[in-house]
Amino acid sequence: MKNMNNTSRIRAIDAIKRKLVGHELSYEDSYAIMHEFSTGGLTDIFVAYFAAASFSAGYTDDELYNLTKAMVETGKKFTLKGIVADKHSIGGMPGTRASMIIVPIVAAAGYQIPKTSSRAITTPAGTADCMEVLAPVAIELEKAQAIVERIGCCIIWGGHLGIAPADDVIIRVEEPLSFESYDKVIISILAKKVAASSKYMVLDIPVGPSMKIRLVKDALRFRDAFTRIAQRFGIRVKADINFQYEPAGFGIGPNYETIDAVKVLAQTPDRSSDLEFKSIKLASEVLDLCFAADHRADDSLLVAEYLLKSGAAMKKFREIVKAQGGDGDFVIDRISVGNNKKEILAPHDGVVSGVNNFNITSLARLLGAPSDKLGGMVLQARMGQRIKKHDILLTMYTNSADKLREAVDTYTHMPVFELQV
Amino acid sequence: MKNMNNTSRIRAIDAIKRKLVGHELSYEDSYAIMHEFSTGGLTDIFVAYFAAASFSAGYTDDELYNLTKAMVETGKKFTLKGIVADKHSIGGMPGTRASMIIVPIVAAAGYQIPKTSSRAITTPAGTADCMEVLAPVAIELEKAQAIVERIGCCIIWGGHLGIAPADDVIIRVEEPLSFESYDKVIISILAKKVAASSKYMVLDIPVGPSMKIRLVKDALRFRDAFTRIAQRFGIRVKADINFQYEPAGFGIGPNYETIDAVKVLAQTPDRSSDLEFKSIKLASEVLDLCFAADHRADDSLLVAEYLLKSGAAMKKFREIVKAQGGDGDFVIDRISVGNNKKEILAPHDGVVSGVNNFNITSLARLLGAPSDKLGGMVLQARMGQRIKKHDILLTMYTNSADKLREAVDTYTHMPVFELQV
Repeated sequence: MKNMNNTSRIRAIDAIKRKLVGHELSYEDSYAIMHEFSTGGLTDIFVAYFAAASFSAGYTDDELYNLTKAMVETGKKFTLKGIVADKHSIGGMPGTRASMIIVPIVAAAGYQIPKTSSRAITTPAGTADCMEVLAPVAIELEKAQAIVERIGCCIIWGGHLGIAPADDVIIRVEEPLSFESYDKVIISILAKKVAASSKYMVLDIPVGPSMKIRLVKDALRFRDAFTRIAQRFGIRVKADINFQYEPAGFGIGPNYETIDAVKVLAQTPDRSSDLEFKSIKLASEVLDLCFAADHRADDSLLVAEYLLKSGAAMKKFREIVKAQGGDGDFVIDRISVGNNKKEILAPHDGVVSGVNNFNITSLARLLGAPSDKLGGMVLQARMGQRIKKHDILLTMYTNSADKLREAVDTYTHMPVFELQV
Repeated sequence: MKNMNNTSRIRAIDAIKRKLVGHELSYEDSYAIMHEFSTGGLTDIFVAYFAAASFSAGYTDDELYNLTKAMVETGKKFTLKGIVADKHSIGGMPGTRASMIIVPIVAAAGYQIPKTSSRAITTPAGTADCMEVLAPVAIELEKAQAIVERIGCCIIWGGHLGIAPADDVIIRVEEPLSFESYDKVIISILAKKVAASSKYMVLDIPVGPSMKIRLVKDALRFRDAFTRIAQRFGIRVKADINFQYEPAGFGIGPNYETIDAVKVLAQTPDRSSDLEFKSIKLASEVLDLCFAADHRADDSLLVAEYLLKSGAAMKKFREIVKAQGGDGDFVIDRISVGNNKKEILAPHDGVVSGVNNFNITSLARLLGAPSDKLGGMVLQARMGQRIKKHDILLTMYTNSADKLREAVDTYTHMPVFELQV
């Protein structure tokens, strides 16, 4: 689509130039920029200049507010009534699909949670890739809105909705840099929540050496700025800053992470207690906000645990799968795994004293994730666990014998687990 | 003190024997055992048999309740009225003196928190050792109770109070093993809280490779058992399960950990944001329980932050120091550090990808902690931080040039930080 309004185009270019030399952007500047980005009126060169300015100069609170508002207004929007909540993780840890558990818990409690998720870019799977194992996720906004109005929730791919489209343009240009400023992250997340008409949100901020935020002091600064701007949109934010040093689940890659999530929902005895704990904790924090808005005095933790353990969340999850066009009667044990597999054994006794998440991601991608949904791994060892020589540390899965050989060879110089004797 | 009541002694011995062959202990059995332990009626051999039985057979809920009740009733007790709360960490991570910050915050909010702490056994400092840098901590129960009634709180050494004295006997016998069963930990902690008349408590359960609990699933099992038994004593427990992989503060050893805590209380610009965050979070969880009991609808997180940032917590902390007999007008910058120091520099560029807490403890003890309050270290690097070659990783302090040399030599094969290139 080409831009017809030359005034807007000139204003946008002028605003980007002024920002580059340190001027503050007004709401009109912001709108012109977002309008041009979202309609393809400016080439990637201009988008890159804009992105560069956000790294060097940073934004004032007013600019963050204006840019977010303009990003929302140049795209489509949900128009949901009642209590609408959301949960967002700024993480980057593979194998931690808590959203697929939190969304049905919150909806089973009677609140709306229109979850839009991303696909994997550099990780082995995004929530959208995982959900797609069971149901379509590329859903039009009108249909998604109807689903949320009917069953209270959805788990869909955000890239197909047309909400905050300028963000997709900016992200595409930033990708070669593999780098986003914190300010830009605030705008991206918040624009999508405003467009989804969410009024309550829990911001999961895992901190750790392989997370996007590595230090608590940076997490606190991010939380404070995010909360301030969100408040101006009438959104109440609860931030959960937590240390994370390894995947919460066992599986890495779309099918394996999906299996983890549904095992927690189905309460199978072999489910991951870490993933269950993280999900209940975050779901209870979302419920805290909903209960406060609803003047309900219930204990959110007990409610979240009850909805999970009673099977209400699993029932709701099957409704989601069905509403999005999948088989709501899916059988967990029939979710497929790759044809080729290889168990990696412990070379000696020891306690797991480190888990290298970069290597997890690299190996899972070598095995075919995320494009091959059956490529990936299942981790059998956990931080702090005592391991005996020849215990299984992890199992690699893939559909390709070549890929398996390559991943096994790579493991020798890219091990996942550190064993302290 | 010798036991005069032969019937009790015979019952205790008989009960221990029966427990060893798998019988369940009744309340009368439990009372006899705790009575004999607390009055010195049984030798260490019998205590060891009892401790051994707790490892092998474990306890039913009824036994846990009875043993705890008996342990309380064979010792002294606080008799506090009104809302009495507490916070207890089952951790074992050095350099994390959150109690010295949480106690004054909770008391400044108007609730009672009679904090009894331990001295270091194998770590470089306990809260009691740190508090002793500023004020006496060996306080009689009657005086402690009067302090709490007057100012709402205290931070004292639990070993001098005579509450749950049987526990001290059991711990002394268990020490050579360096090992406690989870069941025994439940009894120890709970007996002290019941004796302190606490009705609300936050149980801080850090999980990690160098913590007492290394896996989330074990933390959940511990939390569930603890909460069940506490409920029978009318104590409401909120468990905070969190990952911890490095000290929250910078300092290791009594004086350095004390400096960290008072810097957070005084809100100096160079305070530790990790320690502050952990303290505010736990304090707000204690306040959540108090507010619920008090039918107060305030946001506990905002209240905790306000009491800390406004200086109210610092003012309360100075009251504690003064009430226990220290100098309430102490000046932070005059808390002494060791005469001999040595900075350890980074051998190359890298990101801190691991912190070895066992080595931290060993080095701090080599430097003289806890008996020499000036022995210890200050860590300058944190997990996830980018480090340049020759940046200072940590500074060792001690009063003895010999100890410094020994610790510096030891560092070469016991490094604290792992730097990933």
